[in-house]
Amino acid sequence: MRTNIYTDLAMEAASDFGEIDGVSMTSEEHAEIGLVTTTVEISNEHGAASLRKPIGTYITLESQVLMENDPDAHEFIIGEMARKIGRLHKLGKDDTVLIVGLGNWNVTPDALGPKTVARVLVTRHLTETDAVPWGIDDAVRPVCAVTPGVMGITGIETGEIVRGIVDRVRPGLVVAIDALAARSISRINCTVQMSNAGVNPGAGLGNKRMELNEKTLGVPVLAIGVPTVVDAATLINDSLDYILDDMIAQSDEGSEFYKTLQSLQSQEKHALIHHTLEPYAGNMFVTPKEVDAVIGRLANILANALNIALHPGITPDDINRYL
Amino acid sequence: MRTNIYTDLAMEAASDFGEIDGVSMTSEEHAEIGLVTTTVEISNEHGAASLRKPIGTYITLESQVLMENDPDAHEFIIGEMARKIGRLHKLGKDDTVLIVGLGNWNVTPDALGPKTVARVLVTRHLTETDAVPWGIDDAVRPVCAVTPGVMGITGIETGEIVRGIVDRVRPGLVVAIDALAARSISRINCTVQMSNAGVNPGAGLGNKRMELNEKTLGVPVLAIGVPTVVDAATLINDSLDYILDDMIAQSDEGSEFYKTLQSLQSQEKHALIHHTLEPYAGNMFVTPKEVDAVIGRLANILANALNIALHPGITPDDINRYL
Amino acid sequence: MRTNIYTDLAMEAASDFGEIDGVSMTSEEHAEIGLVTTTVEISNEHGAASLRKPIGTYITLESQVLMENDPDAHEFIIGEMARKIGRLHKLGKDDTVLIVGLGNWNVTPDALGPKTVARVLVTRHLTETDAVPWGIDDAVRPVCAVTPGVMGITGIETGEIVRGIVDRVRPGLVVAIDALAARSISRINCTVQMSNAGVNPGAGLGNKRMELNEKTLGVPVLAIGVPTVVDAATLINDSLDYILDDMIAQSDEGSEFYKTLQSLQSQEKHALIHHTLEPYAGNMFVTPKEVDAVIGRLANILANALNIALHPGITPDDINRYL
Amino acid sequence: MRTNIYTDLAMEAASDFGEIDGVSMTSEEHAEIGLVTTTVEISNEHGAASLRKPIGTYITLESQVLMENDPDAHEFIIGEMARKIGRLHKLGKDDTVLIVGLGNWNVTPDALGPKTVARVLVTRHLTETDAVPWGIDDAVRPVCAVTPGVMGITGIETGEIVRGIVDRVRPGLVVAIDALAARSISRINCTVQMSNAGVNPGAGLGNKRMELNEKTLGVPVLAIGVPTVVDAATLINDSLDYILDDMIAQSDEGSEFYKTLQSLQSQEKHALIHHTLEPYAGNMFVTPKEVDAVIGRLANILANALNIALHPGITPDDINRYL
Repeated sequence: MRTNIYTDLAMEAASDFGEIDGVSMTSEEHAEIGLVTTTVEISNEHGAASLRKPIGTYITLESQVLMENDPDAHEFIIGEMARKIGRLHKLGKDDTVLIVGLGNWNVTPDALGPKTVARVLVTRHLTETDAVPWGIDDAVRPVCAVTPGVMGITGIETGEIVRGIVDRVRPGLVVAIDALAARSISRINCTVQMSNAGVNPGAGLGNKRMELNEKTLGVPVLAIGVPTVVDAATLINDSLDYILDDMIAQSDEGSEFYKTLQSLQSQEKHALIHHTLEPYAGNMFVTPKEVDAVIGRLANILANALNIALHPGITPDDINRYL
Repeated sequence: MRTNIYTDLAMEAASDFGEIDGVSMTSEEHAEIGLVTTTVEISNEHGAASLRKPIGTYITLESQVLMENDPDAHEFIIGEMARKIGRLHKLGKDDTVLIVGLGNWNVTPDALGPKTVARVLVTRHLTETDAVPWGIDDAVRPVCAVTPGVMGITGIETGEIVRGIVDRVRPGLVVAIDALAARSISRINCTVQMSNAGVNPGAGLGNKRMELNEKTLGVPVLAIGVPTVVDAATLINDSLDYILDDMIAQSDEGSEFYKTLQSLQSQEKHALIHHTLEPYAGNMFVTPKEVDAVIGRLANILANALNIALHPGITPDDINRYL
Repeated sequence: MRTNIYTDLAMEAASDFGEIDGVSMTSEEHAEIGLVTTTVEISNEHGAASLRKPIGTYITLESQVLMENDPDAHEFIIGEMARKIGRLHKLGKDDTVLIVGLGNWNVTPDALGPKTVARVLVTRHLTETDAVPWGIDDAVRPVCAVTPGVMGITGIETGEIVRGIVDRVRPGLVVAIDALAARSISRINCTVQMSNAGVNPGAGLGNKRMELNEKTLGVPVLAIGVPTVVDAATLINDSLDYILDDMIAQSDEGSEFYKTLQSLQSQEKHALIHHTLEPYAGNMFVTPKEVDAVIGRLANILANALNIALHPGITPDDINRYL
Repeated sequence: MRTNIYTDLAMEAASDFGEIDGVSMTSEEHAEIGLVTTTVEISNEHGAASLRKPIGTYITLESQVLMENDPDAHEFIIGEMARKIGRLHKLGKDDTVLIVGLGNWNVTPDALGPKTVARVLVTRHLTETDAVPWGIDDAVRPVCAVTPGVMGITGIETGEIVRGIVDRVRPGLVVAIDALAARSISRINCTVQMSNAGVNPGAGLGNKRMELNEKTLGVPVLAIGVPTVVDAATLINDSLDYILDDMIAQSDEGSEFYKTLQSLQSQEKHALIHHTLEPYAGNMFVTPKEVDAVIGRLANILANALNIALHPGITPDDINRYL
C-alpha cells in the first residue's frame, strides 16, 4: 500500500518483495555488537528491474554502534568491512586504486566522501619513486585519491571529472565513497552499503546525475555509501502513510471513512507534501544535530577499512595508525 | 487547535493571537523587493507570558530575495537592517561593541554566527593603538568579535564563556548572532529577527541553554537571528495537523469520523512522531540542500549591516568593501 | 656576479639583462596608487633561452597597496587586471573557460589558487540549462572551476588531473592560478604576473613538475600568479651576496682579502646554506606572519578581475557583488 | 660572540652558558628512536635573569621521528610525554582541566594549538551530567577546551579572553598549547617543550604579548609548545654569523681583514637584515613546505599525550582511540 519511493539501499528495496527471480538475500548477525550483515545478489535483468538497481552484489552492514563513540565495536566493524571489500573485488597484485570522495565538502552530511579521502593513506606517488617510508614499502599498493566536488561548485558534471581523471590514471579499480539518502530515519549513520555495481544515477544527497560504473569509466567500480540524511518529502510521506494505515486498520472496510482515507492517500498526499515544503519543493533533507561528530567517526571507519583492504602490509592491528 | 510549539520568532508567536494586552505588532512593506518588516513590541509581563518572550522590541525582515543571489536587493536589505539596528540600541560615541558568533562552525546551518564574525570589521586592537589604516580612523568604533563554540566542542556552557569575556572587555553592547529554528519551512533563510531583548534560553539549532541578556551579562544585548532549520518533529507535527484539519473540515461535525480525527490528534500524534524519528527523538533538523551557499550569503549580509550600523565612517556605499 | 637563481617572474629575469635579442620590456606607472605595470615580450628562442621562460607575453602589476586593506586602490587594480587579461587572450563569444586553482589548500601561502576558485562566479552548469538567474543571463559566459590539489594529497601529478578534465570539458581557455616563489622579499604579495605562456615546470611553492600550456593541454593557457613566499635558500643566498658584495667593494682589488671573499662565494656558500637549513635542504619557505589576511584579499582581487574579464555583463561597477 | 637572540626553548638558552647558579640541566637518551629528553630547572632569580625565563621546570623531548610518519616511534614518545606531564603537575582527583589552544587557525604553522584542541577528549559537560559513555566514565576527568583566537581576528588580547574563561570555569589546571619560534632550523617540528612556568610574553609565532601563568590567571599553567617556525631575521643573522665566524677563524688575529670582519658584525648586520626583509621588518617566518602534514601529526601526538595524562582510564593502549 505504501508509495514506492526510491531508496539507495538494495536491502531496503529487496525487503519490499518476497522471493523473486533474480534476487537473493541472506543475512548473518554478530549479536554481541548488534551487527547485521545483509548480502543482496541481483543476478539477472528481472531482479534488476524489480529492485531498480543494476546487477551485482550489495553488502550492507548495520549497527547502532556506528553512531556511537565506541572504539572496540568500530574496530570489529572495520575488520568486517575490509573483508567484505576484498570479497567484492579481487585486486591484482600491482593494481592501482583510485578513491573518489563524492559530495560537497561545505555541507556537513554530504562531506563523508571528501572527509574519508582526507584520511586514507595515499601512496601512488611514493610507490612510483620508491619513496615509501616507515618500513612498509613492500606491503603498500599504489593508491591515489581525489575529491571532484559537486556541480554547484565546479560547474561540471562530477562524472565528467572522474572520467577524465580515470582516463589519465588508468587504475585497476575505482572506489567511490558517497553520502546516501536513506528511506528510514532508523538507518541514518548506522548502515554501510558496499557494492560492485557502481554508483547509480539519482543516488546520494545532492541529486547527482552521474553514473559511475565499469561501463561509463572502463574500470570496475566499488561503491561505498552511508545514508546520512533522509529526504524531507520522504519523511513526511512515511509519517502520513503510517498514520493513515493505522486509521484504515481501525475502520470498517467499505465504510465512508475507509473510502475517504483511501482516496485521500492517492489524491492529496503529494499536494500536502508540496505545500508543507514550500518554497523548497523536494530540496530539503533531515539529519541529526550531532552530524559533525558522526561524520568524522564514519570517515575514520571507512578510511581504516580501505587502508586494510587495499594495502597488504596494513592489518587490523594498525587501526588508526595511518590516518 | 494547533499544538502550541515554541518558536524563536516573536512575529510567529504574536500571529497566533489577536489583539492582546502588552503586545503590539505593526508591519510595513517594500513591495518592489517583496520585503515585509514587522515590529513586535512586548511592553509588559502579560505580553511576555503570552508570547513566551521577554519584554522588548523585535523587528523582523522577511524577503524571499535573502535566499537568492540578488546583490541589488541585498544592498537594500542591508541598509534597512543597519537602520533598524541603530534604532534598537543607541550607541554612545566611544562605546566598544563585542560581536558574539554563536553556534557550531562544523555544522553548516549552525555556522551562521561564526561565519558572520569571520567577515565583520574588527577594530578594537587598532583603535587602542591608533593604528586604524585606510583613512577611516576617525570614523571607526572599537569592535571586537569572538566565536565561543558550542558545549559539545568546548565542554563549557557557552553563556559562561561569553560572560567571562564580557567581564574582561566590558563592552557597551553585545551583539549576539545565531542560527534559529523556524516554525515554518517558508521562513527558513529568508527572515532576519533583530531584538533588544537578548538571546533566549532554548533558542537556536543546538538546544542552547544559556540566556544572554542585560541581566546575565551586565550590558545590553542585541540579538540577531536567522532561522536556518526547522525541527524535524515540528515539521511532521505541522504536516499532520494540516491534513487532519483538512479532513475534519470535510467531515460532519459530530460524526464518528470527526470524533476519531479529533481524538487521534491529541492521543497518537506524539507517539507517531516519536516513532518516525527513532532513534533520534527530537534531535533532527530539516534544512535545504543548498544550505552552504545560502549561509555564506546571509553571513555577508549580516556582516555588512553590522559594519554600517556600528562604524560611523562606513556607509551603504561601502557594501562588501570591508568584509 | 650574483648567483643566477631561477625566478618565476619574467620581469625579474629580464632585469638581469640589458637589451637582448628576442626580449622587449616596457613599463607604465600609475603614480597615484604606486602601480607599476611591466610588459615583457619574449619573441624568439634566443630570448626564451636567455630568460629561461617560454615565448609569450608576461604582464606584471606591482603595488604595495596589494598588501594593504585599501578597497579604493584594489578596485583600480582589479580594473587594470581585467583589461590586461582581455588583452592577453581574445575569447570567442561562446568560449567556455576552465579556471584551475593550483596549490595546497592546507598550507596558507599556497592556498591562493583554491581560495580564488572558491570566489569566482561559476556558470557553466547554469548556461547549459538556461538557469542563469539575477537578470544577467545574456551577459554570462560558461565558466567552470576546479581545485585539483597537490601530489602529496592526491598521489597524482596535478598536470594529469588537469589534462583529464580538459579532455572532457574541452574549454576554449584554461586560466591557471598559482602561488609563486619570488626572488625578492619585496615582491611578496604585491606583484601579480599574468601570461599567455602557460605554467612553467618548477614554478610555484610546491615544486610542481607539471607544465600546463597549449602544447600539453591542447587549449590556450592563461597563467596568473602571485609570489607569496621566497625560498629560504634564496633568501640566505641573497643576504650573503649582499654583504659579500659590500665587503668586496670596500676592499682593494687584488688584495688577499679580496681574493678570499671571491673564492668564498663560489666555494662555501652552497655548503653554508645547506648547513643552515638542515635537515630540510631546499624545502623551506619564508612568508609574512599576516599571510592569512593577505591571501584572502588577493583571492578577492583575482576573482573580481576574472569575473569582470570573463563575463560581458559584469563590469567594474559590480566589484565584490558576485564573490 | 653570537648575537644573543631570544629563544622560546629553555634548553637552547641554557646551552649558551656553562655551569651557572640557579640553573641545572640534565639529559637522558633513548637511542633506539633517537629521543633526547632534557630537563632544565631554573631554581632562583639569578637563573631566571640569566636565561630570561621564569623560575620553573622545563622538559624538552627532541627526536627527528616527530617529523616523520612513524607510528611506532610516536607511540613511544606519546607515552613519555604523558609521564612528563604527570610529573610537571600533580592533579587532584577531581580537578577540572582547561586546555587552551593558542594561535591563529588560519595560518598553518600557527594552528598547532587549535588543531590539538580539536582532537582532545572533552568531557566536562558529560561528567557534570553523568553522561560519559563507552564504559570509561569512572576513569574520566572533567576536561574542557577552547581556542581563543589571536588579536588580529578578535580585536582582544588573547590573555584577556583566557582569563575571563578561567574566572568562570575555575579549573584546577590550565594547559596552554602553542606553536613556538625556534632559534635553529634543526629544532623545527621535532622538539616539544613542556613547562610548569607558564606561557611567557613574547613567545610564539604571533608576537603574543600575554603572559599566562599562575600569577595572571590564579591557577597553575602547564605550557606545551612545539617550535614550528624560525624567525626570518634570526635565520639570516645566524647564517651571517656562521660565515663570518668561519672567515674570522681563517684570518690572522690583528690583521686588517680580521678587524673589518669584527667591525662588520656589530655595525652592519642589523642594517643588512633590515634591508633584506623590507618591507616586512621582523614579521616574516621560515617553515618547511610539508608543514600541513607535520602539524596534523604533531596535533595527534599532543592530543594523545594529554588524553593519557589527564584521564586515569585512558592508557597508552588507547592511542588514537579517542581523537
